[in-house]
Amino acid sequence: MKKIINAPESVVDEMIDGILKAYPYHFKTVGTATRGTRSLVLASAPTKGKVGIATGGGSGHLPLFLGYLGKGLADGVAIGDVFSSPSAEEMLAVTKAINGDAGVLYLYGNYGGDVMNFDMAAEMAEDEGIHVLTSLGADDVASGPPEEKEVRRGIAGIFYAYKIAGAKAAEMASLDEVKRVADKAGANTRTMGVALSSCTIPAVGEPTFALDEDQMEIGMGIHGEQGIDRGKLRTADEIADVMLTKVLEDLPFRASDEVSILINGLGATAPFELFILYRKVHDMLEQLGIKVYKPFIGEYATSMEMKGASITLIKLDGELKSLLDAPCHSPFLLQQLQQE
Amino acid sequence: MKKIINAPESVVDEMIDGILKAYPYHFKTVGTATRGTRSLVLASAPTKGKVGIATGGGSGHLPLFLGYLGKGLADGVAIGDVFSSPSAEEMLAVTKAINGDAGVLYLYGNYGGDVMNFDMAAEMAEDEGIHVLTSLGADDVASGPPEEKEVRRGIAGIFYAYKIAGAKAAEMASLDEVKRVADKAGANTRTMGVALSSCTIPAVGEPTFALDEDQMEIGMGIHGEQGIDRGKLRTADEIADVMLTKVLEDLPFRASDEVSILINGLGATAPFELFILYRKVHDMLEQLGIKVYKPFIGEYATSMEMKGASITLIKLDGELKSLLDAPCHSPFLLQQLQQE
Repeated sequence: MKKIINAPESVVDEMIDGILKAYPYHFKTVGTATRGTRSLVLASAPTKGKVGIATGGGSGHLPLFLGYLGKGLADGVAIGDVFSSPSAEEMLAVTKAINGDAGVLYLYGNYGGDVMNFDMAAEMAEDEGIHVLTSLGADDVASGPPEEKEVRRGIAGIFYAYKIAGAKAAEMASLDEVKRVADKAGANTRTMGVALSSCTIPAVGEPTFALDEDQMEIGMGIHGEQGIDRGKLRTADEIADVMLTKVLEDLPFRASDEVSILINGLGATAPFELFILYRKVHDMLEQLGIKVYKPFIGEYATSMEMKGASITLIKLDGELKSLLDAPCHSPFLLQQLQQE
Repeated sequence: MKKIINAPESVVDEMIDGILKAYPYHFKTVGTATRGTRSLVLASAPTKGKVGIATGGGSGHLPLFLGYLGKGLADGVAIGDVFSSPSAEEMLAVTKAINGDAGVLYLYGNYGGDVMNFDMAAEMAEDEGIHVLTSLGADDVASGPPEEKEVRRGIAGIFYAYKIAGAKAAEMASLDEVKRVADKAGANTRTMGVALSSCTIPAVGEPTFALDEDQMEIGMGIHGEQGIDRGKLRTADEIADVMLTKVLEDLPFRASDEVSILINGLGATAPFELFILYRKVHDMLEQLGIKVYKPFIGEYATSMEMKGASITLIKLDGELKSLLDAPCHSPFLLQQLQQE
């Protein structure tokens, strides 16, 4: 295992420590632990009367989840071990810390452990008088058939839900309204990924799975969950074609739709490869008469050093466009968010 | 070779095509080729009376060099094949396209091929009445002894020169002044890198060098140039200590200096590893009484899918701080540039 770490058991706490030291004006920890607390909120939280947005999940996916805290984004995060859910207590500490007496939205990916712990935290929060609603990221079309959307996992497409729900909350909208736009973003978002190599969980020390030198797997999850097609490595154009076709069929996206695209690198993919993918996606959409409103290309949800990428489309209307364009602010996010 | 590409010979042109399709409002090509021109400038260039900043170099380093074009940054770029210099003609086309009748600064890394071609372009530009001065990035302390700074290569630290010279040019300063601050940024910047694995040049198809599963090489260049110490993989804290110590001794940096830090991932390093490195760098500087003004942590100059990182320090004064903080704008750059 080749990683720049000190010890497998300390990676998460040292990562948090490094992030707090890099951006002390942006993040603070909450809770009672003198060191190593895994509950982080914005240094400026909470704003009275603003809906708080809490997220969380396993480590190893930066900028997920920490990087989506900021003005116009989420307010707090509970951080788990690598690829493991944080605890209900940690999520409760976040919930209380970001409570501005307007309710809290839990916005996170659809994974069993997270759902169990965050549902428990929501119950505890309700007991303390904080109203909690939940919106789940479930954009991975490879993780379940269209008729069983409730089993689908959340991957990179949750970026759009953070951006859109965060912008709505910044407008001082009600909890119901913030949940409505988060759900609307989720309902209009579809993602498909491809893996060319595995990553290694530090505490395990061996790659999670093996792919031969000439193999790739389409539809693989961001923790190495089984995909839908393992086969020979294909060209960038063929990979884009297979993934985009699945994504387009699923919503379905149609001619004259306006979309934003996210081409996401999983960690070890060279940036130029993402632009070669984007090129084909752009050309296919142009041919179909689907209009690209604003692309995002880079690392938005990684699997440590996994090699691969995902393609996300979100169908936009006037409301979603306006929320996507609203200002936001995180040391992890791209400048482009503030461009016209 | 596992890459998401179509063919080794088309990666650069397809990358450029993808970037132009993603950000048509930001970039345009110049020159006479109907397709595949390697000379790019800002869509908005040139501004009459503003010094133009031209850069360039081999491909495979995104966001270098293309990503440093923007308002408050560079104005044009000549792009070579992977790890190869662009031609003098391409640089001349860029120079003419960004000429605002106030002169042009060539700002790029100190590599033989680039220096030869860009010096030739500068001569041709002078023949056409465009005054050109040059500032070379040469921040890699591992690539030459202090008494032979002219042989040192430019690596990630050139980020600071783009930011600072770009801000000065945006103030409509003279060519001499823009060169002065670019040189000042360069003279106060030091970088040291470490590689844990090689990358593979697409046209070669095999890794550039081999490192055993338990080996790393400190001081390796971003094209795989030999470093100063190949040995067993050490801990993140030990790696940070070795690299930072070399960087600190070289300027030298001293107690009460104010610095900015760049922790740069070379392509395949998981983001959390960069924060574990930052943590140790921060602690060492704090202990030495060196004040961190603003850290940048992420991928600023990559070597495709090389695993590794570099640590850059720049010593700041009031002028450099103010230019570092000035607004800038590129779809490749981090939001943090606009933070206070």
